[in-house]
Amino acid sequence: MQFKQPDPEDLSYFQNILNPGRVLSDDEARSRCASDQTEDLCFLPALVLQPESAEQVSLILKHCYEQNIAVTPRGAGTGLSGGALPVLGGIVLDMGRMNRILEIDTENFQVTTEPAVITQVLQEAVREKGLYYPPDPASKGSCFIGGNVAENSGGPKALKYGVVKDYVLNLEVVLPQGERIWTGANVLKNSTGYNLTQLIVGSEGTLAVVTKIVLRLIPHPTADLTMLVPFRRAEDACAAVNEIFLAGHTPSALEFMERDALVLTQAYTGSTLIPLPDDVAAHLLIEVDGHDPEQLMQDMEQIAERVAHFDIGEPLLAETKDEKERLWSLRRKVGEAVRAHSVKKEEDTVVPRAKLPALLRFVKDLGKKHGFESVCFGHVGDGNLHVNILRGNLSESFWNDELPLCIRELFEEVQRLGGTLSGEHGIGYVQRRYMDIVFNPAQLQLMRAIKDVFDPKGILNPGKIFPEASGNLP
Amino acid sequence: MQFKQPDPEDLSYFQNILNPGRVLSDDEARSRCASDQTEDLCFLPALVLQPESAEQVSLILKHCYEQNIAVTPRGAGTGLSGGALPVLGGIVLDMGRMNRILEIDTENFQVTTEPAVITQVLQEAVREKGLYYPPDPASKGSCFIGGNVAENSGGPKALKYGVVKDYVLNLEVVLPQGERIWTGANVLKNSTGYNLTQLIVGSEGTLAVVTKIVLRLIPHPTADLTMLVPFRRAEDACAAVNEIFLAGHTPSALEFMERDALVLTQAYTGSTLIPLPDDVAAHLLIEVDGHDPEQLMQDMEQIAERVAHFDIGEPLLAETKDEKERLWSLRRKVGEAVRAHSVKKEEDTVVPRAKLPALLRFVKDLGKKHGFESVCFGHVGDGNLHVNILRGNLSESFWNDELPLCIRELFEEVQRLGGTLSGEHGIGYVQRRYMDIVFNPAQLQLMRAIKDVFDPKGILNPGKIFPEASGNLP
Repeated sequence: MQFKQPDPEDLSYFQNILNPGRVLSDDEARSRCASDQTEDLCFLPALVLQPESAEQVSLILKHCYEQNIAVTPRGAGTGLSGGALPVLGGIVLDMGRMNRILEIDTENFQVTTEPAVITQVLQEAVREKGLYYPPDPASKGSCFIGGNVAENSGGPKALKYGVVKDYVLNLEVVLPQGERIWTGANVLKNSTGYNLTQLIVGSEGTLAVVTKIVLRLIPHPTADLTMLVPFRRAEDACAAVNEIFLAGHTPSALEFMERDALVLTQAYTGSTLIPLPDDVAAHLLIEVDGHDPEQLMQDMEQIAERVAHFDIGEPLLAETKDEKERLWSLRRKVGEAVRAHSVKKEEDTVVPRAKLPALLRFVKDLGKKHGFESVCFGHVGDGNLHVNILRGNLSESFWNDELPLCIRELFEEVQRLGGTLSGEHGIGYVQRRYMDIVFNPAQLQLMRAIKDVFDPKGILNPGKIFPEASGNLP
Repeated sequence: MQFKQPDPEDLSYFQNILNPGRVLSDDEARSRCASDQTEDLCFLPALVLQPESAEQVSLILKHCYEQNIAVTPRGAGTGLSGGALPVLGGIVLDMGRMNRILEIDTENFQVTTEPAVITQVLQEAVREKGLYYPPDPASKGSCFIGGNVAENSGGPKALKYGVVKDYVLNLEVVLPQGERIWTGANVLKNSTGYNLTQLIVGSEGTLAVVTKIVLRLIPHPTADLTMLVPFRRAEDACAAVNEIFLAGHTPSALEFMERDALVLTQAYTGSTLIPLPDDVAAHLLIEVDGHDPEQLMQDMEQIAERVAHFDIGEPLLAETKDEKERLWSLRRKVGEAVRAHSVKKEEDTVVPRAKLPALLRFVKDLGKKHGFESVCFGHVGDGNLHVNILRGNLSESFWNDELPLCIRELFEEVQRLGGTLSGEHGIGYVQRRYMDIVFNPAQLQLMRAIKDVFDPKGILNPGKIFPEASGNLP
């Protein structure tokens, strides 16, 4: 499929249907929408459109479908797999103006929101009503809830509370040919027809554009405790994760950070909060939450006892709001700090939890064998390890040609361990080429056929998810 | 699409690929597979096949697809929407022989099972390892986990623990043309391509035949408490549900039973456990669970205080295992008791929780207006009310022609209240005709197109879910 780039006639059509100032073809707007947080990738769109209603989204898509113009929906641009990159030019559908929380239903514990509400803003708004929306990616202060739905995001709380898909009840979406539909109903249980809602969640903007989101909420926990445990061997930290679960605990967060992750982050933020003696190889950040502070303290003590037989340093317990916030703020900045240090390729590996020590060992051995450095961190409580491979002094040819083969080796091992390519970042643009490792032709063909049902011409977010090139893909 | 009924050549093909005794054309086998628990419906299949492996399922489907023979997969036959009825004859694929639990992975808290394991058997097997699989339909002692996956079943624990879809990590399925695939990976988080797993869950055997199921498990709660509260007004019982949640409690069960439900069930089981003075209109069965018995008692006391301002009778607290089991056994037998009393049509209405009092009022007013009696019970903690309309002395013409119009009125109200047709029973055969109430043509067309992707000839479980007739549908 070859797509048409928008021409002056298209421009004048969009100027008719959108409000003044919402059709942008200047360099600043185009280059703002050319990148996200993925490596150093950059693809300029021809045009940026900023719809303010589902109706406008519908008119835009209808026109683009008829005219065969590629459309790439964009949230806050915090994605880590290049899902929002307009790799074939065309139009970026910048959803940023659709940013209202429409209703917080305190009787039914639901919130209805437009997609461009910042995740943390949404969390704080429902929190004021005593309610809780748990999934919070590290970028929660800037990412949009719509992007979270597109990628089926997770975050530190997933091991206890689940990921985005576990909270989405219903979606208003615009299909590529302009039709507006709801995918389900605002109910907690639903066995009525095929689950279109769950098909859209995690489909990375390739099936439809989400214009309204209905999320279920839960009562907000009223107490929590955080503990940071230093380990002298990184693999021990991974092994400890499984022991904590086997002892019957379900922490609300279990985050792993390799030494270098914290070194880089403390340097980046100017923090000296966490002592980093030479013999510390990794940390586990452990959180428990609930309603009874005494019970939580007891839980945390039991967890501390449980991990004491590993070769660990002195655990650091954070009890005050301020202490906890400083620890969590460091954790949330790890990705940013690593990126500031070096261009990186980030692999969002996920395996059954007990396989984590084996995975970490493989990553390090692979680095030694091929001569690259990696910084690993992530949500090990649910088996999700972010493997950040640093550009550092690697040559352009190694980075572009050889490293993808190393990453292929890594994902082949992940697959052998029972895992898959992405736990929460999505496939987007950069992981497409590895899809054949975890899916056979029959599986991929099913997914492609589903894409064709929604978008026969393939105008919506082309060049994503599927391994083969589409259009004149770079 | 007209389907072929299996002929002697087909029979001999099946006799070649299946073990002796697994190809059944006798009256006993055919009539056993002609009904489920839905009304008094009966459709004889031409042939019953009992595969013992995914490979056999694949060979059967491949042949039937080529020969254009309708195939209706069947679990334990406990369905309440007619999903397992072979409404066009053809073949019933009786999955009952594929009944092994394949692996309980105590390290990663997962179980891999074949589909014909009885739900309670599965629960008890993982319980022995300290693990918990919460979704338990009232029929848990006889239904199959595969049927639960097909219908996305719920049960009493859904309000705290979610439904089947919240536990399914991965499925091995056979597609209608015989291809065997896995839908995902055995991981807790997955953003890798479209969510085929969630598309199959709740698709009622119309997209693929499930041959292996991987479920996530959680640590088993170690304590629980049950309380039965009599209400003098049924609507108050529904209203109390919302107050309990608004006070910050998340019970592990919140079951509603109208007076008649308990009267019939106690008569049916010969129980006199629950006193039923004339002025009691309904009961709430409330369960809390966790790990700290004292905390639970405190919770239950707070819940009792919270509902005390309604016009209630003396709550009955069950603390011992035996007391709790007797209460729960009554609740689980309600459906059976109502069915033993009269042929019924059961509507699996679901609305946002706070709309329950309005829904119940509407049901009763509708009955008065049109002259039918109903017995209502269900999982009101998540807004799921089972409305059982009794055949009683209703004429055949009312039952067949007028009652469906009343049910249409009911579902139209459900839709106005923000709800939908089925919370956990599925659409199957009997609710198809109401699909147009909650889905517009664009939504239905999307679902139909997805069906076509999986099953272009429509051989798999024809006559289900979609409102229009398919084949020579009765």
